[in-house]
Amino acid sequence: MAAPQRLSDFVDGERLWARHMALATFGARADGGVDRPTLSPQEAQARAQMIAWGRAIGLEPFTDKAANLFLRLEGRDPSLAPVVAGSHIDSQPTGGKFDGVFGVLAALETAAAIVARGEQPLRPFEIVAWTNEEGSRFAPGMTGSDLFTGTKALEAVLPIRDADGISIGEAVASILAADDKVPLRAFGLPIAAYVEPHIEQASVLEEAGIPIGIVSGIQGTRRYRIRVMGEAAHAGTALRKDRRDALMAAVRMIRAIDEAAMEPADTLLTVGMLQVTPNAPSVVPAEVFFSIDLRHPDNAVVDRVDAAIRRIVEEMKGNCSVELKQIQHSPSLNFAPAIRSAIAEAAAARGIPAMDVYSAAGHDARQLHYICPAGMIFVPCRGGVSHNPDEWAEPEHLTAGAQVLADVVWHLANSA
Amino acid sequence: MAAPQRLSDFVDGERLWARHMALATFGARADGGVDRPTLSPQEAQARAQMIAWGRAIGLEPFTDKAANLFLRLEGRDPSLAPVVAGSHIDSQPTGGKFDGVFGVLAALETAAAIVARGEQPLRPFEIVAWTNEEGSRFAPGMTGSDLFTGTKALEAVLPIRDADGISIGEAVASILAADDKVPLRAFGLPIAAYVEPHIEQASVLEEAGIPIGIVSGIQGTRRYRIRVMGEAAHAGTALRKDRRDALMAAVRMIRAIDEAAMEPADTLLTVGMLQVTPNAPSVVPAEVFFSIDLRHPDNAVVDRVDAAIRRIVEEMKGNCSVELKQIQHSPSLNFAPAIRSAIAEAAAARGIPAMDVYSAAGHDARQLHYICPAGMIFVPCRGGVSHNPDEWAEPEHLTAGAQVLADVVWHLANSA
Repeated sequence: MAAPQRLSDFVDGERLWARHMALATFGARADGGVDRPTLSPQEAQARAQMIAWGRAIGLEPFTDKAANLFLRLEGRDPSLAPVVAGSHIDSQPTGGKFDGVFGVLAALETAAAIVARGEQPLRPFEIVAWTNEEGSRFAPGMTGSDLFTGTKALEAVLPIRDADGISIGEAVASILAADDKVPLRAFGLPIAAYVEPHIEQASVLEEAGIPIGIVSGIQGTRRYRIRVMGEAAHAGTALRKDRRDALMAAVRMIRAIDEAAMEPADTLLTVGMLQVTPNAPSVVPAEVFFSIDLRHPDNAVVDRVDAAIRRIVEEMKGNCSVELKQIQHSPSLNFAPAIRSAIAEAAAARGIPAMDVYSAAGHDARQLHYICPAGMIFVPCRGGVSHNPDEWAEPEHLTAGAQVLADVVWHLANSA
Repeated sequence: MAAPQRLSDFVDGERLWARHMALATFGARADGGVDRPTLSPQEAQARAQMIAWGRAIGLEPFTDKAANLFLRLEGRDPSLAPVVAGSHIDSQPTGGKFDGVFGVLAALETAAAIVARGEQPLRPFEIVAWTNEEGSRFAPGMTGSDLFTGTKALEAVLPIRDADGISIGEAVASILAADDKVPLRAFGLPIAAYVEPHIEQASVLEEAGIPIGIVSGIQGTRRYRIRVMGEAAHAGTALRKDRRDALMAAVRMIRAIDEAAMEPADTLLTVGMLQVTPNAPSVVPAEVFFSIDLRHPDNAVVDRVDAAIRRIVEEMKGNCSVELKQIQHSPSLNFAPAIRSAIAEAAAARGIPAMDVYSAAGHDARQLHYICPAGMIFVPCRGGVSHNPDEWAEPEHLTAGAQVLADVVWHLANSA
């Protein structure tokens, strides 16, 4: 008698790769990248393609008031909470073919494998594509998972507008209107477990030569906007003692904040945006507005630097005034041990090398983590490059990720 | 027999004030300030107004390939070199009603006084408004006086572009096209003497309670542009050790340069302009471009800080690269004793208190100093504030400055 087949034996790597290339045609850039804004006509085309692929193997599409897209494969007990896997199909304006898309297509490949094997799991299985993960058309991102999990309320999110003045509410309404008979469901459907495959967006796996990353968690992030207000004055006449130089105050702050974030060495502190007003060479700056992006896997480190930032901006402001606004605070999180061990076991069973990694970037799995056991599977991407037309993942790594996902889903969907 | 009247007796302080308010409507800001970029439509309106006021009292307008505006009052001997007085009518983006404008309107008031008295001076008298004194639309400033005096050549200046990509050459051509029959003259017309009235842009006169400053000279200036080049990276994943963060390198440089310019206390060091690329909150800055403006009356101080700046940018660049370009070097200068004594005598004769002051700011008089006897008359401005919508000068101080100018011009224009 032959050894019992694993679900991953039914994963078709060629089909998986072909579907990546097919989705990349929706919003294709001349440079080989992808520009597929959330809730755009290009995303609507990719969405219709997903629905068509799902229906072709008997999956039933659902959506909700955030335009999240679900494709459901029924379980032997439809009353049980489903296992859900997926990611997103929107991209950055200078995006690539794999960020987000891999998670959705690996989940679709898992459903296809189940159908190919012809055996229904105990629980239903759903593929999901969350709305506006990227946050580049409507800021901030994670809109779909925020609304689904109740992290944010519809009335707070729908009025957010893009650069052309179109609101999320209007964009959702137009994409829902284009759907072909896709029923609307409520937010907050109970979920048994959530697994999100994704390219790593870092080079730890590539450098280690390991195809599967078992994501231990997502590092904590705080984001700030700081406004330093001084007074414009003539560069040639105003004496130092009479100046209220907003730039020199900002420079003192940034220098001290950078020093405060030196340890531990993996503390990530970035001042990516800084604007000077009036920004004229012979005028003492009246105002400086700058961003701080702070991340570390250990909440204690993030909190310590946070306290330093708040102290420093006051200590270094001199005779200027300062406003600090924290615009985001996402604590570090550790994914559920049950999901992490399911991934490790599935990889080991297939003989695919795997290692623990953590996610420096945020993902929809962060929101799901707070409502169900959640986890992520990373695969390598070349040079760690993402959010870039040059983003690239090897076909065999995508296949390995989809194989591990398939066996993890099969395990979870057959657990009572 | 009555005492002989002075020309200053014909100065009309109310008219002088009303003309300041009238010019301030061209480029008026909602906050009461003035935004009148050089060679802009707003300056063209102010220029047309100046020409109209001049023609109404028989002055003849002239211009040149720098769009400098001259209004000529003929002398008894038209072959003699004219006495010239004036300043500029362009402003900083956050400018006020008096910087530059006072010098031009005081000169116009002198011409009006001559016409009112009905007696022609021996030499011609010309009012001038120099192009692009401020340097905020096209950097650096002093374009008109630089070209007139031959300090710079047309071919070096005309290609300089503003933030919208418009060149000085294009902007000059469009303002000249809008002129109503204003003849073009060559640069470098011989000048007998140049006097520039201006608000002090410092608070020495105000604190001393003295309405007239006899300007002894202009402090030395060096101006730089510094480009720090690093590499863009993802704020959430790139480790400190792997980053080439152009902003953090620039911040280290600016902090150290500011420290190096602490002594003596009247050293003026300004970083007024700083631009970050790509300037996105979640991207480590790839490039920073900033200005340094350094001034002190003592050339030795300027030279010492100059050496420190050049050393610091290399020491603090870390793993970025840096380009330093000195775009201006103007040594300290002392104005002609003949002009300074003429100002002192005119003030004393009218019983107006006067004192020696030096100019911390550069003025077009710097360029004129190298081709003819030149000097400046300062009047107080409130709190020393300029390049600011709150810039303010008292009407009686403007009147006193115009009275002194009138008698100085009359003296100089009747000297063989």
